[in-house]
Amino acid sequence: MTAQAALLAAGELSSVELLRQQLAATDASQPVINSYIYVDAEGALAAAAESDARRRSGHARPLEGLPVAVKDNIDVAGMVTTAGMETRRYDTAAAFDNPAVAALRAAGAVIVGKLNMHEAAMGADNDNPFYGACHNPHRPGYTPGGSSGGSGAAVAAGLCSAALGTDTMGSVRIPASYCGVVGLKPSWGAISTRGTVALCRRLDHIGPLTRSARDLRLLLQVMTGFDADCAQSRAIDFVPADSAPLRIGVVDFGDAADVAPDVQAAFEEGLRVLTGLGHRLQRLPSPVFASGRARRAGLLMCEAELLVEHADAWAGDRSRFSPLLVKLMSWAEGRSAAELAAASQLADRGQVQLQQWLAQCDVLVMPTAPQRAFAFGTPAPASQADLTAYANLAGNPALSVPLPVAAGALPVGMQLVGTLGDELQLIALADAFQKAVAWHPSVPDACAAWWPK
Amino acid sequence: MTAQAALLAAGELSSVELLRQQLAATDASQPVINSYIYVDAEGALAAAAESDARRRSGHARPLEGLPVAVKDNIDVAGMVTTAGMETRRYDTAAAFDNPAVAALRAAGAVIVGKLNMHEAAMGADNDNPFYGACHNPHRPGYTPGGSSGGSGAAVAAGLCSAALGTDTMGSVRIPASYCGVVGLKPSWGAISTRGTVALCRRLDHIGPLTRSARDLRLLLQVMTGFDADCAQSRAIDFVPADSAPLRIGVVDFGDAADVAPDVQAAFEEGLRVLTGLGHRLQRLPSPVFASGRARRAGLLMCEAELLVEHADAWAGDRSRFSPLLVKLMSWAEGRSAAELAAASQLADRGQVQLQQWLAQCDVLVMPTAPQRAFAFGTPAPASQADLTAYANLAGNPALSVPLPVAAGALPVGMQLVGTLGDELQLIALADAFQKAVAWHPSVPDACAAWWPK
Repeated sequence: MTAQAALLAAGELSSVELLRQQLAATDASQPVINSYIYVDAEGALAAAAESDARRRSGHARPLEGLPVAVKDNIDVAGMVTTAGMETRRYDTAAAFDNPAVAALRAAGAVIVGKLNMHEAAMGADNDNPFYGACHNPHRPGYTPGGSSGGSGAAVAAGLCSAALGTDTMGSVRIPASYCGVVGLKPSWGAISTRGTVALCRRLDHIGPLTRSARDLRLLLQVMTGFDADCAQSRAIDFVPADSAPLRIGVVDFGDAADVAPDVQAAFEEGLRVLTGLGHRLQRLPSPVFASGRARRAGLLMCEAELLVEHADAWAGDRSRFSPLLVKLMSWAEGRSAAELAAASQLADRGQVQLQQWLAQCDVLVMPTAPQRAFAFGTPAPASQADLTAYANLAGNPALSVPLPVAAGALPVGMQLVGTLGDELQLIALADAFQKAVAWHPSVPDACAAWWPK
Repeated sequence: MTAQAALLAAGELSSVELLRQQLAATDASQPVINSYIYVDAEGALAAAAESDARRRSGHARPLEGLPVAVKDNIDVAGMVTTAGMETRRYDTAAAFDNPAVAALRAAGAVIVGKLNMHEAAMGADNDNPFYGACHNPHRPGYTPGGSSGGSGAAVAAGLCSAALGTDTMGSVRIPASYCGVVGLKPSWGAISTRGTVALCRRLDHIGPLTRSARDLRLLLQVMTGFDADCAQSRAIDFVPADSAPLRIGVVDFGDAADVAPDVQAAFEEGLRVLTGLGHRLQRLPSPVFASGRARRAGLLMCEAELLVEHADAWAGDRSRFSPLLVKLMSWAEGRSAAELAAASQLADRGQVQLQQWLAQCDVLVMPTAPQRAFAFGTPAPASQADLTAYANLAGNPALSVPLPVAAGALPVGMQLVGTLGDELQLIALADAFQKAVAWHPSVPDACAAWWPK
């Protein structure tokens, strides 16, 4: 995105040209990747032309002319917010932008359309029965991760310059990891979630996905802000990044996390890069409170809230929900208020676990997900969100940055987790990491044909 | 408290002398007021002697030698934490101080004992069937309010220099209002609630009760701090008080709050004092979201969590709970997870209501409670916590300061509510208010006999 912004600023590319390239690639990619649920080509082209006009008149804004796509559980004025659900397909279009979307638009970004996602954001493979599976650009037939799978896939394939996702248990960071892009779940409350379809208000976050870490900073600064009309909003004082060597906490998960050997190997290589940057590793004790328990508590919190958020549809024709969602929500229907209160207490323990680790280091690193992307048709690993959920329970910022992998191999992500308000430190660290591994944006082989030579 | 601190600092009073006076008054008062569940005279006298020794050696600490008593749902090492419940009466004594208690002790305060409270903090009249009713020092036979009734009563009667209470829906501010003392519910997370008996973790706060507003500042500064071992802890950046004229928001409650005419009259007199201080009143619209609905949502959140917090006792002999608590908890047992999730969503609406008002002013003022203290034996008004609950739902700081009332009349409190981290502004405003009305600490007539002439 930053590179595209430089081309736009230098007049070497117009916003309309950039958008036309992306729209053409999107059209070509849809039968294979299916990352978009809705593309507003006409509206986006008009906005891009306005952007070009502002730039010509010397009034360019910070994100002038950059095409951004939005996960389909976030309101964009004039577009239906399906949340990947059949029950919402024929709803009235949203009347207002979510505040972060409005802020992007006000900063000059061009809103292109709505991205595919796991139904109701309640799952992480994006094999959506109503809008079609979204595929991983690195290997079609494989999941892009979820629930923001369309966001990860579209950014990886270069179909937009940046995307918004939502992250309740890891739904920005898991697709970032599986698709080889960068994704940030900010501090709880830093970005208003008003005008989104809730999964679990205590755990929901909006976060950006981009190709390089430095893109995140600008997006975050544009999108953050206290929103008095949103109960899940908190003013966040971001702490400036510190250039001093950091204590990088590395948890000894042992058997407590189901990390695949190839993921572990890539992660350890990543640790060597971090020490090469002058940072010191700090080994941290195994979790007292196993991630799986916290994750299951979080799931009940989500399921119970789905019953509230989708109460009307649920009271109607349940065949309009996927069989899996019917199973989860039916199960939650039989749960008591006390069980939910107990789940919330377990979630608190997950939060304390993360806080205790962070009390012993500056930044915590771990694999983003214990596995790489898996093929559709194989069962989704239950542990996918075990390492990401901590940061949702605790509200702490967390970022996934791609680890170096062999050419043609599926991506693996490294997760950086910081204290509340520590986004700028995480972004600076990820940026230094990407520089150290000489990372450069490239489209996966499977997508090359959609782009001009 | 500040006046006593000055006497101690000047050497005109020793900590042991101060404590002995308070202990003697406490002994005399117990048959009438019953504010204490447990008094550790021996331990407190030893601590006071140590305080005096530190002062003599020139090592006085900020709260040196000031006797502080603690509501009995907050852990004090070596004392049983009954939470006003029969089921906990024979429990092992707490091994550790709650962090705020530890901080007070480290700052030189003398911990005197444990204060009476409404059973399980789930109610606001403090008519405790197991430890006896706590009475209002202004009029025995009347409630001191609750659930921190012992805290309000002990401070009002001068039986300790300051007290800690807890506030989940108004349980610090209501007794402060009914007993004619000052009480602060700080920003959510500002004071660690680790080592307390939970009522509802999302709404629970520890707060100090004192006789003058300026005392609160010192207590808050000693007790605040991020606690990595507590899920309900947030680092708070307190905003320094601004001496400029404030926009004082006054909500037009109309029929939405059940404010008694005599309370309304006292409140309006308080508003005149505030404008006399140079502040400007800003009329705010009636609540879109009526306080009663948010309060009832909060009650379900509390009741469901009581089932978790007291699960073992509840599984045993229910006759050890009061009939009212059995009724509330039994009702909650029949509630579903979805109902609790819906309650939490309603609570969010209460939070947004408060945020929207605060977006239009600097400090919001309203009566603390819609009524004055009532006589035991008359039904507790359902609306007692309607005006205090907003600040719990939202996490915002709120303070109750006594309004001027006729000699011999029951006290009435005015509530000041600020944005997150705005404690110092609220305290400064309450301090200015107390100066403007020439407030001075005095013990109620009913307590005069317990004090040296």
